[in-house]
Amino acid sequence: MSESGSQVIFMPSGRRGRFAEGTTVLEAARELGLGIESICGGRLTCGKCKVKVEDGEFVKHGIISHSSHLTAPSDAERDLLESSHATDGRMSCTAQITGDLLVYVPEESRAQKQVIRKTAGERVIDIDPAIRQLYVQVDRAELGEHRGDWGRLQDALAAEWGLTNLAIDLSALRKLQSVLRQKNWGVTVILWQEREVLDVRPGYSEGIYGLAVDIGSTTVAAFLCDLRTGAILATESTMNPQISYGEDLMSRVSYAMVNEDGTEKMHDAIIKTLNKLAGQAAVAAGLRARDIHEMVVVGNTTMIHLFLGINPIELGGAPFALANRDAMDLKAHELSLKLHPAAYVHVLPAEAGHVGADNVGVLIAEEPHKQQQIELIVDVGTNAEIVLGNSEWLMSASSPTGPAFEGAQISSGMRAAPGAIERVRIDKETGVANFRVIGEHRWSQDWNLAPDAGEGDRPEHKATGICGSGIIEAIAELYLAGILQPDGRFNPNYAGDKLTWNGRRAAYLLATPVQTSSGNPIYITQEDVRAIQLAKAALYAGAKLLMKRAGVETVDRIKLAGAFGSYIDPLYALILGLIPDCEPQHVIAVGNAAGDGARIALLNRGKRIEAQSLSRRAQYIETAVAEDFQDEFVAAIHIPHASDPYPHLEGILPAATTTTPGAPDARPRRRMRQG
Amino acid sequence: MSESGSQVIFMPSGRRGRFAEGTTVLEAARELGLGIESICGGRLTCGKCKVKVEDGEFVKHGIISHSSHLTAPSDAERDLLESSHATDGRMSCTAQITGDLLVYVPEESRAQKQVIRKTAGERVIDIDPAIRQLYVQVDRAELGEHRGDWGRLQDALAAEWGLTNLAIDLSALRKLQSVLRQKNWGVTVILWQEREVLDVRPGYSEGIYGLAVDIGSTTVAAFLCDLRTGAILATESTMNPQISYGEDLMSRVSYAMVNEDGTEKMHDAIIKTLNKLAGQAAVAAGLRARDIHEMVVVGNTTMIHLFLGINPIELGGAPFALANRDAMDLKAHELSLKLHPAAYVHVLPAEAGHVGADNVGVLIAEEPHKQQQIELIVDVGTNAEIVLGNSEWLMSASSPTGPAFEGAQISSGMRAAPGAIERVRIDKETGVANFRVIGEHRWSQDWNLAPDAGEGDRPEHKATGICGSGIIEAIAELYLAGILQPDGRFNPNYAGDKLTWNGRRAAYLLATPVQTSSGNPIYITQEDVRAIQLAKAALYAGAKLLMKRAGVETVDRIKLAGAFGSYIDPLYALILGLIPDCEPQHVIAVGNAAGDGARIALLNRGKRIEAQSLSRRAQYIETAVAEDFQDEFVAAIHIPHASDPYPHLEGILPAATTTTPGAPDARPRRRMRQG
Repeated sequence: MSESGSQVIFMPSGRRGRFAEGTTVLEAARELGLGIESICGGRLTCGKCKVKVEDGEFVKHGIISHSSHLTAPSDAERDLLESSHATDGRMSCTAQITGDLLVYVPEESRAQKQVIRKTAGERVIDIDPAIRQLYVQVDRAELGEHRGDWGRLQDALAAEWGLTNLAIDLSALRKLQSVLRQKNWGVTVILWQEREVLDVRPGYSEGIYGLAVDIGSTTVAAFLCDLRTGAILATESTMNPQISYGEDLMSRVSYAMVNEDGTEKMHDAIIKTLNKLAGQAAVAAGLRARDIHEMVVVGNTTMIHLFLGINPIELGGAPFALANRDAMDLKAHELSLKLHPAAYVHVLPAEAGHVGADNVGVLIAEEPHKQQQIELIVDVGTNAEIVLGNSEWLMSASSPTGPAFEGAQISSGMRAAPGAIERVRIDKETGVANFRVIGEHRWSQDWNLAPDAGEGDRPEHKATGICGSGIIEAIAELYLAGILQPDGRFNPNYAGDKLTWNGRRAAYLLATPVQTSSGNPIYITQEDVRAIQLAKAALYAGAKLLMKRAGVETVDRIKLAGAFGSYIDPLYALILGLIPDCEPQHVIAVGNAAGDGARIALLNRGKRIEAQSLSRRAQYIETAVAEDFQDEFVAAIHIPHASDPYPHLEGILPAATTTTPGAPDARPRRRMRQG
Repeated sequence: MSESGSQVIFMPSGRRGRFAEGTTVLEAARELGLGIESICGGRLTCGKCKVKVEDGEFVKHGIISHSSHLTAPSDAERDLLESSHATDGRMSCTAQITGDLLVYVPEESRAQKQVIRKTAGERVIDIDPAIRQLYVQVDRAELGEHRGDWGRLQDALAAEWGLTNLAIDLSALRKLQSVLRQKNWGVTVILWQEREVLDVRPGYSEGIYGLAVDIGSTTVAAFLCDLRTGAILATESTMNPQISYGEDLMSRVSYAMVNEDGTEKMHDAIIKTLNKLAGQAAVAAGLRARDIHEMVVVGNTTMIHLFLGINPIELGGAPFALANRDAMDLKAHELSLKLHPAAYVHVLPAEAGHVGADNVGVLIAEEPHKQQQIELIVDVGTNAEIVLGNSEWLMSASSPTGPAFEGAQISSGMRAAPGAIERVRIDKETGVANFRVIGEHRWSQDWNLAPDAGEGDRPEHKATGICGSGIIEAIAELYLAGILQPDGRFNPNYAGDKLTWNGRRAAYLLATPVQTSSGNPIYITQEDVRAIQLAKAALYAGAKLLMKRAGVETVDRIKLAGAFGSYIDPLYALILGLIPDCEPQHVIAVGNAAGDGARIALLNRGKRIEAQSLSRRAQYIETAVAEDFQDEFVAAIHIPHASDPYPHLEGILPAATTTTPGAPDARPRRRMRQG
């Protein structure tokens, strides 16, 4: 930038400066701190740095801008503009300033790209991944000069990109000599965290990819992303195969405790599954798993221990010591992950023994620490992580809800898949259920099941079972219809014919044989109700404990996270007493926020630093040893609660019912080993 | 240190200072910059820091020292002194100063230990390896504190040893939780380069080991060292299995060029051999291979390329580009080396395309850069590396001698093993050979081969072949006896009966059938002579080229390195014209200097930095493209040389003989691919 020289203004940012004749537009932008993307370093190969010059007089800016105020494009630039379908633009790396200019930098040329997260609260992610691709021209090897090919590549990276102190992965070093000679010593370098070369490719070449992974106790989800644009190229998910060793966290910890090879077996199982997901995601995007240069992982602490091959035994008893709380970077091959041979794995940090990387993922995705209002975020899974706070303070806790919300431990439970009952309404007069199954848009009362019904009239899927959101609605509706008492027992005084009694135990007929694909009826049993009561009580008690510790009586907003959380109707979550009272329209589902957090950390390395600092900022409340947790838990077994009022549900909840004293015998599912 | 306080003098260094009462002797020593060893950090477990207090008045030092000027030893200290057989000493970590003291620090307590290298020029190695072991007491995990076990270990290492920014290998993290709880949160940490924890062991535990490896084209040698004392615990060597893919470097490069899996095969072969050597060395020392925490490797550039799994094709033709010149640190498991699961491999740097880590090893072992006299160091192997210089300048070259010196390409050639003829004298009158074989101390003329000879009179080993040093002496003696002409042809005018003619080709009868174990005679053929002539000419020409470039006419000292170099009689090396003229007593064998260099770098990490700087300091002369190399080579085929005089051999060499014009058709063995 100089005192004299031509005035150059960049739009839409409006930044301006004076530059000497001969300065390229790219250099001018960089001096002003504006990121214009460039991979090839001004060699007219990548076509990423194109800009447009606005012709004409701009009174507002006080300059006359003309495309003739740039040096004329060379043939090479013209060719590149043509092949980039940008004949009205210029390549900023080669166009030199000769007079005043108003330059427009289009979205796709901005180095700081952003992607919009497509969920409830749409938000932008600045693209600044740990993986970068750079093109460099390396000095040809000459007799009498002994730097070696890697030395020459380092010199080129230092001269052209200012990179020093670089390491190179052995797999890249092994191919370096051949790659350098294939395209006349031009090479594209894949760089990790500005410090290690992961790969080298002949000539100019594009393509860097990453995988964000959320390892849940029940479900494992993987998101394959283009690291240059931030786009999600494929999403794959599957059951966590560790389920065969135990449905909830504590059963898996026990399995590792009792079986000498338990940790190894569960570790191998999750690695195998991740390799399968990575392969499937890559194929879906027209890639190979070896194109994945980095993987970011979130999961609860037990899942992360098992993912790393660390025995989770210490998480099974007080003081619930983690092996490691901080974020980790590992080579994927150390974990036998079959990605790029030099690929890295970044594991987000944990907060405490039972609040893991998944919750840190939720924090960087939902950013309660940037809100003024008090937010309660509940990540509903087999283990629920709960966060409460705002920009001034943050608290977290974990609650052992068990897998009931995911359809396990429910007599007709199933995952959210076609045929699963996901919505339920019960007629207060007749007690008859009207439901909707996944994969069929019509409610069951509109199904035409007559033998002579036309093909299009019959439901595409009949009911095959009930998933988490369905069971919640069913139980809440049973309660609203008076069929279920607040204590969770079926009402012995209920007269309708949908309740079948077997001695003192009853079951509610949700779907008749003709409505199911198997031809067998689907019931809600007393045990089903109990399982959901225990799960929701654990969740409520955890949230309540945080509110008590924080001295907060009501919260401004509740976010339900997790795949399951996203399917729950907020109103029914309130009616059932899963969450404390709140304005129903302020209860929102935010999707797989933990997975989103993994994706955000994959796409933006600054967010990893933020994650590390957040992991130490949240004050953790240990529910397992809180003396009042047990009391909160017992009171929360009632529907919606034995003592806490729900003023926002006035008119919806039935008038106060006499609850039978003595809640069912229940204890939270986490077993403690006092150590 | 304080102005007042007691005066404390440490011997033998003589350092002194005043210290306040209550200061421990160890603290005082550290303040004075004196290293006293301590592993346990003052916990009275390691017993490494013991010192002796000299009682009495010391006029010279002006103080009165008494052991009562220290706090009395506790029971724990007494027990430790007893078990360390040091009842006359004190543990400096616990003994506190109460008055003036003269403290003697015995050799074994000094942190800067040294070992003496047991070869020609004995020298000391300061022990400062990259691997350290430290004992720390870690905070017990407590409820409500969430640092994690690794966080707590890091905090302990920072507080007690000032170590920060540490990483931990996954294998160590996997066992950390269990190890910490086994000995009440006391743990011994194995640390690499002050930055990575490689292992953790319950309680106080000793034992850190390293392997120095010299990968020669023909022989691979491994030295297992105790990294605390520097002692060599085991030495193992074996043939390089890559020999089956080509005897010399260029044939192996060709093999990799021609066969798609050539590099992989040769890489796998050397890794398998190194795993075998590591296992054997460990067993010999009563250890397991997994006790080896670091391995330092030297070898020529082709060997290092193959060791790393890098195709050596570029070393086969100009400009002889290395993949990497610099030193490298790799995880052993990346190379499938079966050492400690977290072990590191350090590869010394190279100088140029044909002067590799083995020569850098020679440089740090022989230190020509610290001599004032001009030294010529010749590392004789299948490929010879040559260094010339002194403290002011250094030059290096490489010469393709081929494997003849190692017994290959010789009709009765063999490795230096029992039965190999290693010394030869030829009677000038009769032309009869008198020789000595390895494993039998008597010369052949003293053997009693009569059928009625007693058991003790017969030789323990008869001749089975001839090794490198034997063939050199044989040819030199044949020349001295006039049986061989200076041009290398057998003398057609020689009348003795030991020369058998077959047309125009002759062979010399070295051992008669009764002198050999097979009952077949051993001959020196014309081809044998030619092979040695080519090898010695390449070596000489390389040395001469360096001297010419340096403008040096004579050298002050010649060092013969390499296993073979150590067996050559320097006088015969001169007579044959293997090396330029020099005072015979200034020609010395220094053993496996490259292997010594690997061991030095293993034991002292400062030497690694020196190696890196030396690798860039030596000016490399490329023999393969030097126009005058070919002329030097042709002239050097003559015995000892066609034109260079050997004034130091006056009276030993026969009077000038007329040499037949026209040397045998010969070219250096390195084939060049101009590229």
